[in-house]
Amino acid sequence: MRKGILYVVSGPSGAGKGTVMQHFLPRHPGMFYSISATTRAPRVGEEDGVNYYFMEKDDFLRLRSADGFLECAEFCGNFYGTPKEAVMEKLSMGIDVLLEIEVQGALQVMDSYPEGIFIFIVPPSMEELRSRLVGRKTEEQSVIETRLDRAKEELRLADRYTYIVVNDVAERAAEELEAITTAEEAKSERKFEFVKENLL
Amino acid sequence: MRKGILYVVSGPSGAGKGTVMQHFLPRHPGMFYSISATTRAPRVGEEDGVNYYFMEKDDFLRLRSADGFLECAEFCGNFYGTPKEAVMEKLSMGIDVLLEIEVQGALQVMDSYPEGIFIFIVPPSMEELRSRLVGRKTEEQSVIETRLDRAKEELRLADRYTYIVVNDVAERAAEELEAITTAEEAKSERKFEFVKENLL
Repeated sequence: MRKGILYVVSGPSGAGKGTVMQHFLPRHPGMFYSISATTRAPRVGEEDGVNYYFMEKDDFLRLRSADGFLECAEFCGNFYGTPKEAVMEKLSMGIDVLLEIEVQGALQVMDSYPEGIFIFIVPPSMEELRSRLVGRKTEEQSVIETRLDRAKEELRLADRYTYIVVNDVAERAAEELEAITTAEEAKSERKFEFVKENLL
Repeated sequence: MRKGILYVVSGPSGAGKGTVMQHFLPRHPGMFYSISATTRAPRVGEEDGVNYYFMEKDDFLRLRSADGFLECAEFCGNFYGTPKEAVMEKLSMGIDVLLEIEVQGALQVMDSYPEGIFIFIVPPSMEELRSRLVGRKTEEQSVIETRLDRAKEELRLADRYTYIVVNDVAERAAEELEAITTAEEAKSERKFEFVKENLL
């Protein structure tokens, strides 16, 4: 049976991964969007199993010891990660899975699941990235500079991904992502199965 | 400077390469559609430089000896081939090139230009392939059987291509081909140039 494809969407903060996803996901209801687990407390309005799977720290660390995460990391004393089991189960059922994760997490998945398709979302320019970060109005100037420096560091890693999508306009970028999934379906290592079953 | 991409579209006779091309090419006026050279005489209505480059046999063989073809073959005493120089010139200018050629020719290009993108067009079923060959009404029954046998042989080679596109409906297949070109543009080995020039 056809195995599902694991798509890993990543990119620097401010590149607009979330907005691209908002355009892409509703058109792909058959794709499983993997939700991260975290040990941080839910914020107002956040729901367990919707925004995150909220976990106790002990449970998280136990699962991590048992190699139960495709990727995980600690930020500001809280743990975040992608539980492996649900993803592997969907893939084995032939269901495509999409992870939207941080760059460091994506690098971990490249090691743990190299057959994944890794997509790096980048801004069209650094000026645009800056204005998007400023536009959020939630960050101080020094935080913005730190994020821009970090974005530059992450952008240097873009060539380790399978694809790079420039997010100039989110809807167009989502269409490019869609073209990528269409092309991946047509890869001969996947489509040869169809030829064998129907034409030989 | 960005180098052009060589797309090689191939597939068994009757798979509908030509019809897919008729939907695809008008939407990609910037792509260079390479015309084959042949030593056979022009048929009524055929124009030099439009349908084929018509060549004298001596000139063809001289060019072949000078390694001047990306691929070439002999059918029924006539030679057919893709002149290398024009293709290489376009690619070096950053122009994408599309070849629509026979399966044996495509296998030769895999050797001579492995960085090409090889796309195999297949029919949705053998019944449909048969009815397309019958529908042409230009062939006798025995010729059709020979073509079907040959198609089966060629279909076994589909996994050597980069992509396999099922031509159920030519317009849909052309859209899939379009998605493939969009995805190839987004490959990180090509798009990283954009990141280096604009974001680093």
